[in-house]
Amino acid sequence: MSELVGNLLVAQSGGPTAVINASVAGVIQEAGKHECIEEIYGGLNGILGLINEELIDINEEKARTIEGLKYTPAAALGTCRYKLDFKKKPEQAAKDMDRLFEVFAAHNIRFFFYIGGNDSQDTAHKIHEQAIARGYELRVIGVPKTIDNDLPHTDHCPGYGSVVKYNGTTVMEIAADVSSMATDDGSCCLVEVMGRSAGWIAAGTALARRGPNDAPHIVLLPEIPLDEGAFLLRLKDIVSQLKYCVVVVGEGVKNTAGEEIGADKSRLDAFGHPVLSGAADYLGELVQHKLNLKTRTVKLGYAQRAAAHYASATDSAEASACGEAAVRAAVAGQSGLMVKIVRLETSPYKWTTGLQPLQDIANVEHFVPRDWISEDGFMPNEKFIDYARPLIEGEVKVPTEGGLPKFAVLEKVRVEKKLPPRG
Amino acid sequence: MSELVGNLLVAQSGGPTAVINASVAGVIQEAGKHECIEEIYGGLNGILGLINEELIDINEEKARTIEGLKYTPAAALGTCRYKLDFKKKPEQAAKDMDRLFEVFAAHNIRFFFYIGGNDSQDTAHKIHEQAIARGYELRVIGVPKTIDNDLPHTDHCPGYGSVVKYNGTTVMEIAADVSSMATDDGSCCLVEVMGRSAGWIAAGTALARRGPNDAPHIVLLPEIPLDEGAFLLRLKDIVSQLKYCVVVVGEGVKNTAGEEIGADKSRLDAFGHPVLSGAADYLGELVQHKLNLKTRTVKLGYAQRAAAHYASATDSAEASACGEAAVRAAVAGQSGLMVKIVRLETSPYKWTTGLQPLQDIANVEHFVPRDWISEDGFMPNEKFIDYARPLIEGEVKVPTEGGLPKFAVLEKVRVEKKLPPRG
Repeated sequence: MSELVGNLLVAQSGGPTAVINASVAGVIQEAGKHECIEEIYGGLNGILGLINEELIDINEEKARTIEGLKYTPAAALGTCRYKLDFKKKPEQAAKDMDRLFEVFAAHNIRFFFYIGGNDSQDTAHKIHEQAIARGYELRVIGVPKTIDNDLPHTDHCPGYGSVVKYNGTTVMEIAADVSSMATDDGSCCLVEVMGRSAGWIAAGTALARRGPNDAPHIVLLPEIPLDEGAFLLRLKDIVSQLKYCVVVVGEGVKNTAGEEIGADKSRLDAFGHPVLSGAADYLGELVQHKLNLKTRTVKLGYAQRAAAHYASATDSAEASACGEAAVRAAVAGQSGLMVKIVRLETSPYKWTTGLQPLQDIANVEHFVPRDWISEDGFMPNEKFIDYARPLIEGEVKVPTEGGLPKFAVLEKVRVEKKLPPRG
Repeated sequence: MSELVGNLLVAQSGGPTAVINASVAGVIQEAGKHECIEEIYGGLNGILGLINEELIDINEEKARTIEGLKYTPAAALGTCRYKLDFKKKPEQAAKDMDRLFEVFAAHNIRFFFYIGGNDSQDTAHKIHEQAIARGYELRVIGVPKTIDNDLPHTDHCPGYGSVVKYNGTTVMEIAADVSSMATDDGSCCLVEVMGRSAGWIAAGTALARRGPNDAPHIVLLPEIPLDEGAFLLRLKDIVSQLKYCVVVVGEGVKNTAGEEIGADKSRLDAFGHPVLSGAADYLGELVQHKLNLKTRTVKLGYAQRAAAHYASATDSAEASACGEAAVRAAVAGQSGLMVKIVRLETSPYKWTTGLQPLQDIANVEHFVPRDWISEDGFMPNEKFIDYARPLIEGEVKVPTEGGLPKFAVLEKVRVEKKLPPRG
């Protein structure tokens, strides 16, 4: 195989994380070491920006800024949730795909790196297949990213360790607060966390338990259908013992009928629209009503996936390494693969990167195994803890200015467009 | 005046903060320097615990633990919201007061320090007056504490700088996240923060604005009655310009009729009870309905007042200094006063502590002045920024274990009870 020479394009896709930019930094810094890579471009807002030929010239950025991406949250290149949906919108998808290859060709893109979760790896896979079908020489490597940790084949996903570190810390701090408030009847704080239908994020807060009485006292995972009666009994028991209870609720928790408890559409809001009350708010009302306990809810929302100020150094290093490994794989001639994290040893924690065909990743969701959860379903067990513990080690150092984080901001010098606007 | 010799009692009251324990540490460390102070006791759960004679012996604690209180959130001694309510429950209050003085006498308490907000300073004031009336020699000094920053006479309150630092950081991170998500119609994230009817906490997030396009883009303060029409117009304008908008909402924001917008009691929850939807959720529904924008809400709740992992070093140092100053004042023969923070200079920031009669503090709420807020009411202005900026400087260093904070935990060796249980 003759060496492929050309330009590199890196883009981000899906919901941001605290360390997704570390993967961009990894790609860029590794790319600088390889002569076969000529220009380094960033695509703005994932494939949505690519379709509009919105590229930036990374070589116009300061080295300091690129290094700073390792402690900068959210998608520095912008992101999107745009899909090439050949099933539901085949014509649009075909048109988009044509356009993508026009953009690749116009800018001599030969190395393409897409950083994202399930949907994004699916997109990368389709682009890889199309490149072959079209005879356009392109190396496509996916870089994993998702706080939800629901990609298969990789031991875990960059972004996961940081959300767990932040949420675990928050649960510890909330527990200190709630337990220090003396009340005669006890109290209950419900903390809603992300993760959609996977319970990895909720489960991760169990790392905050250093002793049997420590919070979280109950973790509700979407993998386990919620038995409200059993939940209330367990809660009552804990409050009678400790005078308080901290419950972590995965946003996607379902009832025994398989419906998400946070999506009670029978209720209407002040404007007559169906209410998506949120799982924690629903349970707060339930607890208040059935147990007459003082309840409070916390909904961390976007704060948890953007919390770079307390990101995991392990997570950031792995995110960066995944970006580097992607470039090395592409330069070595590989394509159609996603970088994965391979655990070599749990204690002491040792890991490396590997590669997995994109077709094995796309659109497959990976859930918390049943045997990593306690029998009663209310707490991840030691198997999970052993798995998750190493992922939150170390703190990313974020510089500050005036007492607040000073994140890196890209200059975003645009690459001149060579194509007429998309029709 | 002959020197008063006896035991010291320190207790905490009201909602916890990230640095309220630093004040306890300040009291204890300063107390160790004065021979007139014999034993150092901690009262558990404020006056509620005192009434039950629940004291701990601080001299049984390790010096390392006491120092560790400076980075440990929540009330290490426990707290309460119990009031000596001579207006509504005069008999109970009189009985409680008798009991308090029985406890003081039984343990020869001569120096009493109460760390808390408005209500707690009122309690301290009543105890001071009763000591005089009863001829019981007792030095009572209040130590200010409240994230709400609504105590009068003190430049600001310990606890405030830390909540603002954390919330400001969170707003920056959320803004990075939301702004990086490409959407055609724009999006809006509403972040609800604490502060009850005072807007200090909401206003503090404006420190996150380093440039005119930075978040927060709108800050809704309880001091300004919400004009929904003007709010929606402003929001629409920002989204058309930036494609996104981050709105910070004080939990106590009121409508033009003076009603809290988060307390729409006309709506019923799934169990037929009135809904306290929360200000941000209400506004989220409003924005979704009127502007058809994608909205998300974040409710930090207890997380914000317990966020020791990113507490302000300035705040922690001030909290500790207030505790020290309280002891010095008491030892010097003063009583019936609250320690206050006096600003000597804003840039560079210089401060010292002072003393203010407790009667000036009790039950007086201090709000954000109208001339510290922009004319349209949607943003604190430079006067506020100059005031708040120094308070968030520096980061408290919190040790970690396994990637999560390692907070100090008191041994809580009980002091033997000398009285029969309360009748």
